[in-house]
Amino acid sequence: MQLLAISGALRKGSTNTGLLRALKEMAPEGVTIDIATLHGIPLYDGDEEEAHGKPEAVKALDARIAKADGLIFACPEYNFSVPGVLKNATDWLSRRSTSFKWKRTGIVGAGAGFFHGTGRSQYHFRQNLQALQCIVMPRPEIFVNHNEEKFDKDGNLTDPTTRKFLGEWLTAFIEWVEKKP
Amino acid sequence: MQLLAISGALRKGSTNTGLLRALKEMAPEGVTIDIATLHGIPLYDGDEEEAHGKPEAVKALDARIAKADGLIFACPEYNFSVPGVLKNATDWLSRRSTSFKWKRTGIVGAGAGFFHGTGRSQYHFRQNLQALQCIVMPRPEIFVNHNEEKFDKDGNLTDPTTRKFLGEWLTAFIEWVEKKP
Amino acid sequence: MQLLAISGALRKGSTNTGLLRALKEMAPEGVTIDIATLHGIPLYDGDEEEAHGKPEAVKALDARIAKADGLIFACPEYNFSVPGVLKNATDWLSRRSTSFKWKRTGIVGAGAGFFHGTGRSQYHFRQNLQALQCIVMPRPEIFVNHNEEKFDKDGNLTDPTTRKFLGEWLTAFIEWVEKKP
Amino acid sequence: MQLLAISGALRKGSTNTGLLRALKEMAPEGVTIDIATLHGIPLYDGDEEEAHGKPEAVKALDARIAKADGLIFACPEYNFSVPGVLKNATDWLSRRSTSFKWKRTGIVGAGAGFFHGTGRSQYHFRQNLQALQCIVMPRPEIFVNHNEEKFDKDGNLTDPTTRKFLGEWLTAFIEWVEKKP
Repeated sequence: MQLLAISGALRKGSTNTGLLRALKEMAPEGVTIDIATLHGIPLYDGDEEEAHGKPEAVKALDARIAKADGLIFACPEYNFSVPGVLKNATDWLSRRSTSFKWKRTGIVGAGAGFFHGTGRSQYHFRQNLQALQCIVMPRPEIFVNHNEEKFDKDGNLTDPTTRKFLGEWLTAFIEWVEKKP
Repeated sequence: MQLLAISGALRKGSTNTGLLRALKEMAPEGVTIDIATLHGIPLYDGDEEEAHGKPEAVKALDARIAKADGLIFACPEYNFSVPGVLKNATDWLSRRSTSFKWKRTGIVGAGAGFFHGTGRSQYHFRQNLQALQCIVMPRPEIFVNHNEEKFDKDGNLTDPTTRKFLGEWLTAFIEWVEKKP
Repeated sequence: MQLLAISGALRKGSTNTGLLRALKEMAPEGVTIDIATLHGIPLYDGDEEEAHGKPEAVKALDARIAKADGLIFACPEYNFSVPGVLKNATDWLSRRSTSFKWKRTGIVGAGAGFFHGTGRSQYHFRQNLQALQCIVMPRPEIFVNHNEEKFDKDGNLTDPTTRKFLGEWLTAFIEWVEKKP
Repeated sequence: MQLLAISGALRKGSTNTGLLRALKEMAPEGVTIDIATLHGIPLYDGDEEEAHGKPEAVKALDARIAKADGLIFACPEYNFSVPGVLKNATDWLSRRSTSFKWKRTGIVGAGAGFFHGTGRSQYHFRQNLQALQCIVMPRPEIFVNHNEEKFDKDGNLTDPTTRKFLGEWLTAFIEWVEKKP
């Protein structure tokens, strides 16, 4: 099983990208998790698309999505919703492509402070993924709050309780991809 | 009364920008509507912000927002939600700024085909504007569908029925800004 | 294939229940569609539940859900969201039951006037169905607006174009239940 | 200033109703908070309405809403959304009434366990309140999680930290009603 894990954050020390690295480390035998970032995907502009077609970074990511058995998104939260950077990438990726159709998909997220841990953002992102026709795991969900206490400065997950929950989430997600309920 | 109208679309012939031009034309005496676009606002990246601060285009738009008596957003819809380009702009604008706080705000939108006319997108954008503490007019709302029939190739509004509804919306919005109910 | 179609409206002449009757009529050979209503399900009250357990009407509907190969909900829209009557039924049904888990599910809806045809409501209901762990068909969707022109006084669908779209939706939904993508 | 606080829960020991009692106790001089519940409001049925008009309980609550200077809703969360009981009440209340129009409104909520403390529900309820044309305070928000630890068996708030946050929320809400920004 080949899973593609896409981080919705550009920052080097992002804890959301850190969640994906933690998932990659804990992948069981027979499951590989590749991590992709959204670097190099420009802002979507219909005029640009008409003049020059899809950027190379978009085509490359689209090809990786098409090949994957399942997708994991790390979805940060800004201003109560999906980061523009992540939403913008799906605006490009969805153009004349059906790579997302019926793809088994899961969402994880980490945020600062007490509230929500990207809860608001993940529900908006689900509607976005519905448009793309992904089949998103309904539950379990994972929302990591207080990320300032659970990751080191480089965005590596250090909190054992979170690691345990994340492992349980991954087990459920692998079943979701494999059994195709 | 000075209103700032911000288009969430970059495309030259955008019908959403066209809606704003139509509003500008029909502004009654004593009300001016300036149109802003999001050109020049880069993708948000926390590392970039730390290294170089806010881009000039963000600072300039923030200053225009601070001065305005009310804001109108033209909000397109991609993949059942807010365009990444528009969401990304608010991700930058909200950094260390309170220009949006308690600002009277309205939303308009135009989309292709039968369904919704940006309905799905406007509701997500309202949650985004809640985070920014805007005071968004609850109703009336305006959703222009079948924009392929109601605008010319340059994105100018040509449909008289839509123009009439848009005028009624503007009257209600001016009351919203003026009376501060 | 046995499908259970649940109407979220109580009114006799409801066009939403009418949509389900139209679906039942057009079911192909090998597919039966039973229609259920929410009559008899009381308002949820935790004290009532503790004192008297689940009402009979809830238990009976839960058993029908458990047996079905797939679920279709007709979801009206009141005040930009799911009718209280429909939401209330799921509040009861979800108590100590896993009948909804991983059930293939679809949503249809009809509403008055120009706007949306229950669009706002269906997206909220999807979040409700996520909690119940239903696997809801992402697309195609169906939103019937101007129901005052497309149904007769008894809520029977009379509009041939809507019937055609509804038939295509049913074909897609049967594939969704059968193939389990 | 007269505020009406409406609980979306029927259960006697409800922690959401308990939040409203705590608010009532901490109301400063010159501010009174009356508490209303939704007992006696039946399930909405268009046929019933046509035959017998609005139920007395609905008319009585509508009159209290009309008189209030501001509204506070306690909004529990069931199945990732607004309780059917609360949504159903607004379905009745909105019929041929404009009592909600431009009413200053706030939302509080308490839920069990780690996640959200009614976060998912409050955002859906905001869309409902938009339809009713309420002017809902954007921020601060209040989400009380782990209510099993913060209230006694009768639903009385016992946690001092929550009481402090609730007091700050009330101060902000009174400003929201008074200053009408």
